[in-house]
Amino acid sequence: MNEFELIEHCFAPLAGPEGLRLKDDTALYTPRDDCELVITMDTFVEGVHFPDGMYGADVAERLLRTNLSDIAAKGGTPRGYLLSVAMNSELMEQWLPAFAKGLETTQSEFGCTLWGGDTTATSGKAVFSITLIGEVPKHGMVQRNGAVIGDDIWVSGVLGDAMLGCHLVTNQLISPAPNGQDIYRFESAYWRPEPAVKLRTILREYATAAADISDGLMADVAHISRLSKACAALNFDALPFSMGGEIWADGQNDPIAARIELASFGDDYGIVFTSSPKDRQAIFDAAREGRLQMTLVGSILPGEGSVCIDVEGQEIAWPKKGYRHV
Amino acid sequence: MNEFELIEHCFAPLAGPEGLRLKDDTALYTPRDDCELVITMDTFVEGVHFPDGMYGADVAERLLRTNLSDIAAKGGTPRGYLLSVAMNSELMEQWLPAFAKGLETTQSEFGCTLWGGDTTATSGKAVFSITLIGEVPKHGMVQRNGAVIGDDIWVSGVLGDAMLGCHLVTNQLISPAPNGQDIYRFESAYWRPEPAVKLRTILREYATAAADISDGLMADVAHISRLSKACAALNFDALPFSMGGEIWADGQNDPIAARIELASFGDDYGIVFTSSPKDRQAIFDAAREGRLQMTLVGSILPGEGSVCIDVEGQEIAWPKKGYRHV
Repeated sequence: MNEFELIEHCFAPLAGPEGLRLKDDTALYTPRDDCELVITMDTFVEGVHFPDGMYGADVAERLLRTNLSDIAAKGGTPRGYLLSVAMNSELMEQWLPAFAKGLETTQSEFGCTLWGGDTTATSGKAVFSITLIGEVPKHGMVQRNGAVIGDDIWVSGVLGDAMLGCHLVTNQLISPAPNGQDIYRFESAYWRPEPAVKLRTILREYATAAADISDGLMADVAHISRLSKACAALNFDALPFSMGGEIWADGQNDPIAARIELASFGDDYGIVFTSSPKDRQAIFDAAREGRLQMTLVGSILPGEGSVCIDVEGQEIAWPKKGYRHV
Repeated sequence: MNEFELIEHCFAPLAGPEGLRLKDDTALYTPRDDCELVITMDTFVEGVHFPDGMYGADVAERLLRTNLSDIAAKGGTPRGYLLSVAMNSELMEQWLPAFAKGLETTQSEFGCTLWGGDTTATSGKAVFSITLIGEVPKHGMVQRNGAVIGDDIWVSGVLGDAMLGCHLVTNQLISPAPNGQDIYRFESAYWRPEPAVKLRTILREYATAAADISDGLMADVAHISRLSKACAALNFDALPFSMGGEIWADGQNDPIAARIELASFGDDYGIVFTSSPKDRQAIFDAAREGRLQMTLVGSILPGEGSVCIDVEGQEIAWPKKGYRHV
C-alpha cells in the first residue's frame, strides 16, 4: 500500500459527513444555531508524551482522550476532530492501522468523527496533533474564572493511577508489586484516561469553574483560584485514591509524601470544579445516578493561591510543579 | 525567558477574543447564524516542507498562507487558527519571536487571529501544524465536484514562480540567472504565496468547482474532473507564467518541457476553478476591477481524467505527479 492508499484505508472509514469522505482539503460543518463552539488542540511527541516504540492504538486513544478531556471540562459535547500525523514513512504501514483502530474505538465511545487533517513523513520523532471541536449551549461554557468564595471544590475520579501506569509502561519498578488487576487498572488509567464527558450535565448545571486534571491537582486547581482571584483550600485527607494507589502509598517510606506524589503527577484527566454549597446534595445525587465517582475535596477561601491542609489543620508542603515529560 | 514566558510573550499578542487570552485550554467561538464553517489543517515538517535552518518568519508566513489558500478555494472568509509547535526547546528562544512575527504579518493581512494551540519540545525535526477555521454563507461552500460539461476552466495568478523560488532557497542553480527583481519575485512566491482570499466573491458567485493549486495544476484540476465525473481539457498555450518564468523556460534545452515543469511543480496556491461560459464576461470584469490576474485555460469535456492540448490540437504528455518534498 502506498501512502495515499494507506490513508484511504485507515482514515476514510472514520470520517463523518463533515469530513466530506476526506476527499477535500477542508471539512464543512454547520453548527447548531443554539450552540457555541469549544475548540482545543493537543500535540504528542514520541519520547516526550509517550515512550518510543509504543503500540499505535494506545497512542491514538490517549491523544484523543486528552483532547476530549479539555472539551469535557468546559461542559462540551464533542463533535469532530482533525488529525495531523508526522511520522517515518516506512513505519506508517505497520503503525497506522492500529493507530486508526484506537481512534475508532475512542470516537465511537464518545460520539465524535474524523473531519480531516494532514499526513506527512518525517525522518525525526513522530508528532501527532489533534484539533477537537465540541458544542456548548450558548453562553454555557464552563470557564476557569467563575469560582466564588465559599464554593465547594470537587474532584471526579481518582488521583495517581495514571502515575503508577506511567511507571509501569516505562518499565520503572513499582514496589510493593501491584496485583494483576491493579496493573491493568494503572496501565488503563495511563493509556485510556476517562474523559469526564458524562459529567457535562452536572458541570453545565452547577459548576462555577472547572479544569481537567492534566498537570496535577494542585497545579490545575491553581488555574481556577488564580483566575477567580481567590484561594483554593484542599483537604488532604479527602483526596480520592484507588485502593491500589492507597496500597502503593502505604508501602512507601513516607506514605504522605507518596500520596502527594500521586495527587501531583497529573495525567489523571478527571475534572476539578467548584460549585455552590447549596448544590452539594444535588451533585451527590446526580453523581450517584450517573455512577460517577465524585469527591468533595475542599473549598474556595478569600486570599490567593492554593493550600492543602491535613486533618489537624496543618498545611502540607506541596512541591512546585510545572510541565513534566514521560 | 522560560517556555511559558516565551509563549506568553510571542503568542498572547496574536490572540483574538475567541482565544481567551490563551489562558484556557480551549477557544470559545460563536459562529454567525447564517454561516457554515470550513476547517482545514496543514502540517509542515522541517527538512520536508521547508529547508532545515530556515528563518522563522518565513516558515510561519508560508504555513499560515497555505492554510489560508485552502479556505480561499472554498470561497471562505478566514476567522481564526490553532497552532501546534513541536521544536527543540533550546532553539525556541531564538526562533519563536520571528515565527510569531511572521504569523502577525499574515494574520493582520488576512483578518484572522490566533485562538489556541499547543507548544511542545521535541529532540527531532521541528513540526508545525495549523488548523484554520473560516466561514462561508450557508450552502455557499464551493466544492470540488460541481463542474459540468461545457464549463470554462480558470486559473488565478501565475504558475511556477514558486518552483523557481524553491530552487533558489534550496541553493539549486537557476540558469539563465534571473535578475534581482525576479529573484525577489520567485522567493516571495515560495515563502509568501498569495492565498486567493480576494477571489471569494467571484468564487461564491460564479464557480461550479474549485481547488487551490498546491500539488501542481494538472494534479489539482484532476481532483475536480474526477469528482465531477468529467474530463478537464487544458489549453497549454494559455497557461499563465510570469515574465521571469517565461525567460527561464526559454533558456532551457526544451522550453515546452520546462513550462510543463513550471505548471506541475505546485506550491503556487492560486485557484483553479470552473464556471459557466455565460459568466465569462462577468468574471473578466470582476477580475479587472479587483486587479486579480485571471486566465481562461480550458474547458470541461465529456469523459474522464485531464488532458493538455497544444495550439495544433496535439496532446502534451504530462508527467504523473503525486506528493513532492522540498
